[in-house]
Amino acid sequence: MPDLSLINNLWVILAAILVFTMTVSVGLLEVGELGERFSNSFFKTILITCSALFLMAFVGFNTAFAPTIDGIIGNPLYNGIFLGGFSTNSSGILSGVWWSMTPQYFGTGLTTGTYFLFEAAFASVTLALVAVVALRKLKLEAFAAFTIVYFMLIWNLPAAWIWNPTGWLYLMVVRDFAGGLIVHGAAGAAGLGIVYKIWQEEKRRGLKESPTASFSINPGWLTLSILLLWVGWFGFNPGSVLAFNNEATVVVLTTFLAAASAFLSVMFFEYLIAKKNPGLLYAVNGILMGLIIITPLAGFVSPASAVILGLVGGPLYLAGERWLGRYKWFSDPVGLFPGHLLGGVFGIAMIAFFTQHAFAAASGNSNLPDGLLFGGGMAAVQQLGLEMFAVVVVLAVVFLISYVSIWLIGLLMHGITTDYKKEETTV
Amino acid sequence: MPDLSLINNLWVILAAILVFTMTVSVGLLEVGELGERFSNSFFKTILITCSALFLMAFVGFNTAFAPTIDGIIGNPLYNGIFLGGFSTNSSGILSGVWWSMTPQYFGTGLTTGTYFLFEAAFASVTLALVAVVALRKLKLEAFAAFTIVYFMLIWNLPAAWIWNPTGWLYLMVVRDFAGGLIVHGAAGAAGLGIVYKIWQEEKRRGLKESPTASFSINPGWLTLSILLLWVGWFGFNPGSVLAFNNEATVVVLTTFLAAASAFLSVMFFEYLIAKKNPGLLYAVNGILMGLIIITPLAGFVSPASAVILGLVGGPLYLAGERWLGRYKWFSDPVGLFPGHLLGGVFGIAMIAFFTQHAFAAASGNSNLPDGLLFGGGMAAVQQLGLEMFAVVVVLAVVFLISYVSIWLIGLLMHGITTDYKKEETTV
Amino acid sequence: MPDLSLINNLWVILAAILVFTMTVSVGLLEVGELGERFSNSFFKTILITCSALFLMAFVGFNTAFAPTIDGIIGNPLYNGIFLGGFSTNSSGILSGVWWSMTPQYFGTGLTTGTYFLFEAAFASVTLALVAVVALRKLKLEAFAAFTIVYFMLIWNLPAAWIWNPTGWLYLMVVRDFAGGLIVHGAAGAAGLGIVYKIWQEEKRRGLKESPTASFSINPGWLTLSILLLWVGWFGFNPGSVLAFNNEATVVVLTTFLAAASAFLSVMFFEYLIAKKNPGLLYAVNGILMGLIIITPLAGFVSPASAVILGLVGGPLYLAGERWLGRYKWFSDPVGLFPGHLLGGVFGIAMIAFFTQHAFAAASGNSNLPDGLLFGGGMAAVQQLGLEMFAVVVVLAVVFLISYVSIWLIGLLMHGITTDYKKEETTV
Repeated sequence: MPDLSLINNLWVILAAILVFTMTVSVGLLEVGELGERFSNSFFKTILITCSALFLMAFVGFNTAFAPTIDGIIGNPLYNGIFLGGFSTNSSGILSGVWWSMTPQYFGTGLTTGTYFLFEAAFASVTLALVAVVALRKLKLEAFAAFTIVYFMLIWNLPAAWIWNPTGWLYLMVVRDFAGGLIVHGAAGAAGLGIVYKIWQEEKRRGLKESPTASFSINPGWLTLSILLLWVGWFGFNPGSVLAFNNEATVVVLTTFLAAASAFLSVMFFEYLIAKKNPGLLYAVNGILMGLIIITPLAGFVSPASAVILGLVGGPLYLAGERWLGRYKWFSDPVGLFPGHLLGGVFGIAMIAFFTQHAFAAASGNSNLPDGLLFGGGMAAVQQLGLEMFAVVVVLAVVFLISYVSIWLIGLLMHGITTDYKKEETTV
Repeated sequence: MPDLSLINNLWVILAAILVFTMTVSVGLLEVGELGERFSNSFFKTILITCSALFLMAFVGFNTAFAPTIDGIIGNPLYNGIFLGGFSTNSSGILSGVWWSMTPQYFGTGLTTGTYFLFEAAFASVTLALVAVVALRKLKLEAFAAFTIVYFMLIWNLPAAWIWNPTGWLYLMVVRDFAGGLIVHGAAGAAGLGIVYKIWQEEKRRGLKESPTASFSINPGWLTLSILLLWVGWFGFNPGSVLAFNNEATVVVLTTFLAAASAFLSVMFFEYLIAKKNPGLLYAVNGILMGLIIITPLAGFVSPASAVILGLVGGPLYLAGERWLGRYKWFSDPVGLFPGHLLGGVFGIAMIAFFTQHAFAAASGNSNLPDGLLFGGGMAAVQQLGLEMFAVVVVLAVVFLISYVSIWLIGLLMHGITTDYKKEETTV
Repeated sequence: MPDLSLINNLWVILAAILVFTMTVSVGLLEVGELGERFSNSFFKTILITCSALFLMAFVGFNTAFAPTIDGIIGNPLYNGIFLGGFSTNSSGILSGVWWSMTPQYFGTGLTTGTYFLFEAAFASVTLALVAVVALRKLKLEAFAAFTIVYFMLIWNLPAAWIWNPTGWLYLMVVRDFAGGLIVHGAAGAAGLGIVYKIWQEEKRRGLKESPTASFSINPGWLTLSILLLWVGWFGFNPGSVLAFNNEATVVVLTTFLAAASAFLSVMFFEYLIAKKNPGLLYAVNGILMGLIIITPLAGFVSPASAVILGLVGGPLYLAGERWLGRYKWFSDPVGLFPGHLLGGVFGIAMIAFFTQHAFAAASGNSNLPDGLLFGGGMAAVQQLGLEMFAVVVVLAVVFLISYVSIWLIGLLMHGITTDYKKEETTV
């Protein structure tokens, strides 16, 4: 393994372990916002972490990242089950690198071990975001069954389309730097699929509104969760360069400046509205909003653009929160829809406005044109169309498969929800 | 320092800081399982961490890792006290590397600073495991005295025998990748030595059973402890390659897959038994069991073997827990014996079954033959004998020295236990 | 970017993320010592973190680290606002490195992204230390206004003088390895400026003593805070070599040995005084004292010197705590003055005693002479004078600017304090 591959592997595997912590950190976030009564979120997020590792190794890494069948899905048998099984000579295990990291593709020299842990951690945290809507509502068995479909198919399809260099959307030059659509947008769509099924069962039980957990801030866990998620995003975005180079250090800047700017923006506007210290909950959501918005384009933009995107995030979050708060048929206690769905899709759209070709090329995306604000003209307009097309396709497909899967699971298990009385049987 | 040495040092020193966090994480684990009443575990584990750094620097690093005297113990004066003292030219301090990291031995180019922090962190966490049996029972003074013997002699002997390239067991080709015996097994043996002395004093005070702390789960600290230990093991096992190369990324796979598989296995079997959500305590112990089992052979096996070993860990843990729970003469509130002792020794035995020569060679253990399941034949049977011989020798010696040490301490201090009434005097 | 620059950047950017966590960890420390009633320290430290990132990027990184105007202050327009703004070709963004990291200066090849995150994190944690005196006393608006001055001017001047290779004190060969004066000492001086203004307002309201938060230990958060700060210091000191080389691994030794030694020293002397388990609070303060003392000279001394410095730290801390506890006109609940101010200045003075030229040269400070204890003679005496001169200048200037700033803010805002009744309006 030549030296550059070594340092790229070191960077990405360290990024991977940071992203790995984010799933349980989502559990800490739930408990931080809703109180220790909801501590089964810890169990839920540990379950998600282990399931992601096991099922992505079993076959999900192949369906997402093996050479695709017609651009649609990775060949599930490409590297055998469990990452080469007992082979001492499988792709990237002891000699050579994962195929898409060889010079004719991304060329960063990542081994199977490195790339697997990084992507399994991404898959894991995506389901953790989805599962905030399942809070104390889904039966353990139903959630476990959904997990199996999720890590073998649902998470994997958008990844195979956009992050796999043979995917059909990738070949159309759709780009999503670190998962504004593949992680945050798709999490929103899958969550909507589940929430809709929950609402159908709740209506059938005669409920007029979906029971929602009310806020009960636990300041310690909430603070720890945002600290861990913030540090996790240092792996999430800068690690998504899949190499350690100058641009990776630029992505550190764009990521952290967007977060700081969105925080200050939420503080400023909320202070104008409420005339008092906005408090920890808005602080946490401001940071998250900045991190979410910058995710799909952190590797394409300048630090000053990241500041602007972050500042815009403040009003966007406050508006989204008020607008979505009016719907009573779903419970979204920790803000999957106003944060991750809205912010992720907004960030994807901004690719066509803020991209500067030099940054995109340095993060390995040399096909991406300058954005509208940087003289991209018609190429940028076309990119906007492409990205919006990808948003519609991915959200629709993920919503549909998620809904159908959970509907089938409900059919087999006589409903996916309990009557919410036996808490030890839900996740 | 040539480039490969640089990246090896960077990897191992980062691994070291992760392992460093594990000692206090054991304190978090105790509080997570037994409740905040037991928060003096925090003090205890901080005391262990600082003592390990100080005493290993004083002389313990030499007794374990300096060139040995007849294969038995490292020369305590090899590099002076406190890692070369005031010398600017001592082994590995500013020029050159620690002797066993030079090309004629392991050849990975680690400096004294890197290797010391890594191994001091290992010693530290081993005593943290031992000390779970001391919970609120040992006098502070008795524990402090034991600590001195522990970091200068007890931890150091097995390390000098098996991890030091001039140790007598190393030369017989006994191997223990990251401490199934040296850490987990030996911790169990030392713990047994202390627990036996505690029981003698308790009997003398007329007790019929050893008072045991009952479970009082604190979900937040328990979750944080397993998250930190999990991430710590990313340093513990992959760092034990003592270099950053392809095999280090394979060890990441084997470690994380074993943990995930053991978790799922414990969940599955406990769910079959109890027909409900097994909850956080089984989740945590499942992950730990997988991590413990894979530790002695993480660098010798394939990812699929790691999955099998993890799956076996579930029933093994559940059986061990029920079997050892019948003994009333010792208190083992957080599972030193069913987890670390049983799991560590089981993992050591599995070396002779699951090793694949190509992986072992890539982690620097080219003398290790294929295991029985991979055509190792008589060589594997011989390896099994060797490993079991090492288990018996190490457990016996560590138990004996620990018992004799704590007995002498008890003699000097009029007993090692208090009557458990003045809590501020115990650790 | 050549290979050595790559590994230097990787080391320092990882160090940066560790230092980044330390600001919120100071919030955890406050809550750990004073109880969950004071959980607005979490909000305060998040606010500090985001403000540091935003304001240092806006212009503060330039005023501290751009080429200075006459050695006094960095050129605020050197690299534009927000680290080059929208430029794809600014200093160090995509090609080349930050000017002071080029071969004619420090030569370690750090990019703007790497160096910025590292130094912004330093600035952030410095204000977190200052702000422990503001606990629940300063109005949010007053604190926010102070923050703006702080990150554009107050933190930046000493950094421009001593850490910037064109600074006037740097050119006089004043050295401060990782911030004994620039961080800890200056934090004490700025804190004194604020505390004095608070006391003026409290006297005017008729108070005879400054209301102080009493200790209410929360063992979990206190333990977590010291664990995170300890690990953060692994970034703080070893990262301050600004390169990854043999000396960086020596700094790991000196840092961790000083901490362990100071802990054991505080334990020993406090046990002699109180004849019981000293408990968690002394444990935490012992570790901190060791870390603070070694900070200004961690890269200049041998491991054995670090042990001695740590052991001295115990009595120094216990004396400082008793001596400063007699003053009732300021509230210093978590020990800014006996810990950071006293320890930092003590460490600065020790440079002239314990420095060994070979270590200093290896950390990039080849102009520093041997200390008095290592035959430095008159050169060491002169160094002592220089360092003490720098201490006086920096503490006086930082105190004055801080006091004047907060006084002006008080003038504009009708006082910087509330009557302490409406807690939601203070930080």
